[in-house]
Amino acid sequence: MKPLYLNPGREKRVLQGHRWIFSNEIGDSLSQYEPGSWVEVFSHKGKALGCGYINPHSLITVRLLSGPGREPGAHFITERMARADERRRTLLYPDARCYRVVFGESDELPGLVVDRYEDVVVYQVNTLGMTSLEPQIIEAIHAVLQPKAIVSRHDSTVRLLEGLPLTKAVVHGKVPENHRVELDGIRYLLDPMGGQKTGMYLDQRDNRQALKSYVEGKKILDLFCYNGAWSLTAASGGAAQVLGIDESGMAIEQATNNALENDFGSLCRFESREVFQALKEFPKNTFDVVIVDPPAFVKSKSALLEAKKGYTDLNRRALLALRRGGILVSCSCSYHLDEVSFRDVLLKAAQASGRELSLLEARGQAKDHSPLLAMPETRYLKCYFLQSN
Amino acid sequence: MKPLYLNPGREKRVLQGHRWIFSNEIGDSLSQYEPGSWVEVFSHKGKALGCGYINPHSLITVRLLSGPGREPGAHFITERMARADERRRTLLYPDARCYRVVFGESDELPGLVVDRYEDVVVYQVNTLGMTSLEPQIIEAIHAVLQPKAIVSRHDSTVRLLEGLPLTKAVVHGKVPENHRVELDGIRYLLDPMGGQKTGMYLDQRDNRQALKSYVEGKKILDLFCYNGAWSLTAASGGAAQVLGIDESGMAIEQATNNALENDFGSLCRFESREVFQALKEFPKNTFDVVIVDPPAFVKSKSALLEAKKGYTDLNRRALLALRRGGILVSCSCSYHLDEVSFRDVLLKAAQASGRELSLLEARGQAKDHSPLLAMPETRYLKCYFLQSN
Repeated sequence: MKPLYLNPGREKRVLQGHRWIFSNEIGDSLSQYEPGSWVEVFSHKGKALGCGYINPHSLITVRLLSGPGREPGAHFITERMARADERRRTLLYPDARCYRVVFGESDELPGLVVDRYEDVVVYQVNTLGMTSLEPQIIEAIHAVLQPKAIVSRHDSTVRLLEGLPLTKAVVHGKVPENHRVELDGIRYLLDPMGGQKTGMYLDQRDNRQALKSYVEGKKILDLFCYNGAWSLTAASGGAAQVLGIDESGMAIEQATNNALENDFGSLCRFESREVFQALKEFPKNTFDVVIVDPPAFVKSKSALLEAKKGYTDLNRRALLALRRGGILVSCSCSYHLDEVSFRDVLLKAAQASGRELSLLEARGQAKDHSPLLAMPETRYLKCYFLQSN
Repeated sequence: MKPLYLNPGREKRVLQGHRWIFSNEIGDSLSQYEPGSWVEVFSHKGKALGCGYINPHSLITVRLLSGPGREPGAHFITERMARADERRRTLLYPDARCYRVVFGESDELPGLVVDRYEDVVVYQVNTLGMTSLEPQIIEAIHAVLQPKAIVSRHDSTVRLLEGLPLTKAVVHGKVPENHRVELDGIRYLLDPMGGQKTGMYLDQRDNRQALKSYVEGKKILDLFCYNGAWSLTAASGGAAQVLGIDESGMAIEQATNNALENDFGSLCRFESREVFQALKEFPKNTFDVVIVDPPAFVKSKSALLEAKKGYTDLNRRALLALRRGGILVSCSCSYHLDEVSFRDVLLKAAQASGRELSLLEARGQAKDHSPLLAMPETRYLKCYFLQSN
């Protein structure tokens, strides 16, 4: 392993448990390092901090994987994946057959995401360092999870920051276009090759469960409904009527099929419409619960100001569609829109729509996506349950 | 109503829904206002903002109760209390017989707290303005809640900031020293006249329920256990063994009696010891779950630095007592220790004890204590569920 020295004072964050070294924190010339190779990181004064893999062409230049002086052993991916899986099965979601097995840094496997959908496993490699370990990753998935099929979804745009191409492939077995799974008592048809992310949004799982206590006998509006997960959860919680809206015709088809799978065909209606346009047309004070769960508006710091306007306008319109006394479930999955800014967006939306909001629950990611306290970057999802006056 | 004009630019926060006017925001001489009287608040330029009651001797000088030009009607306390009660009974805690009925500003009744413990109601008046309305408050409690007994607990030290004396009294009916209630399936003996706050900590209710999924077969340590609510919840969730520690002998007696009431006498042990001292003596890596729920260390901004040290040391020692892989439930009820500082405290404690922490759940107050989004001051409780490596 080549040594790598940080600029003076840059070790503090790492000593607190952060696992990224940014390019501007490195004193040495980066051209000397082989992309994807292992390095040992030292403070400016020579204190050993840990070992990791390097991508000299990425802003996040080094991702640490182990402590000082210890390059991870040959089977570290299998060992860590087994530990991550055991944590889910024994502590977080006992008996679950769909869950996030590996959540990158939080499971000591930076750049790797592994989701299990019963006997199909979908994984994502998002860094150069992990790309060179892909054979071991596939081996680990076989050993730990013994799936019937494995899919690689290397099509997240974060890969472009690492200079990696966008691809996807069935790596092992056969994957049906409509893979049937059950999650928290609801049946879904999912398409591991064609769907968003790895097939569905597991990170909202706990939040969807929290929704159930607010929906009995109620009229629900689900914006950006995608495959209908929020809508179906509301229906299973006793909602009287559910309307899901999404611009994508494919999403609406999926949601409709999922509703039929669960015998909620008459309870849930899904419409393929542009969300802002639909909100303009709804009569005011109509719904008891409005769910706002948009895709990430902010993919970078520079786009933040524009995105805040978008979120504010969206929540303002959602509040107008909500009856007084009703519940707004408002989400943002943009890391760059931090919690303070998110609250500010909601406050502005409330003011503009003449409402006041009580914060019933300030929620985050599902437990199998648990952030590292020392890495704010691993905490991205905000999901607030608010009551309007 | 006398008019009151704000200094230039000070209306912004109020227009966003904040309901306090601080003394340094007021342009007029405060000596002209009768303490406890109604005023109408205007911006510097004369825009009407709302009506409220004034205490010229308090830093929080005006608390708004209604919109521009509308002094609240004669029955506003009864009306608002009825609305607050209905919200709990229909939406937040259907069928509950113990809950916070009124949470001050969040229920449009600033300075008033009302807790229901089955057929005993305990209330707190914490402002001068509300003090002059006390006859109407008692009338409202009779009308809305029809309790067998009413207790006033005017002994919170926040009253000193308003120039009010500390008192407590049985206002109506008879109150047994051991009042039997049931909350979330657990039986408690509580003393409405002698206990902390109004008798017990209802604000941790939802968080205690969240604890249940982490305790089955586990060894639990409950620090600052007070009347044993966390301990008993752990026991009811299937914990193998629970140890509660509190310096107060009276708290330990209550906790022990509560354990007996629930037939958890052999499962739960309670010890009257100073918590820091006890933590020094525990062997390391002993408990599967450690709950740290201290009283407010920070009663003012100025005491913050010292308090942060105290919280850090406490959590560091708690982590040392926790086995690797175990769960730390760490709380702070100090408003002045904000969420960013709280996370910083936990990070420092983790670093000092050689641990890394995953954030499983970042929780706050129970739903009947829901903060107003526009008033950060109404959000005080932090309760994090963290897993240690």
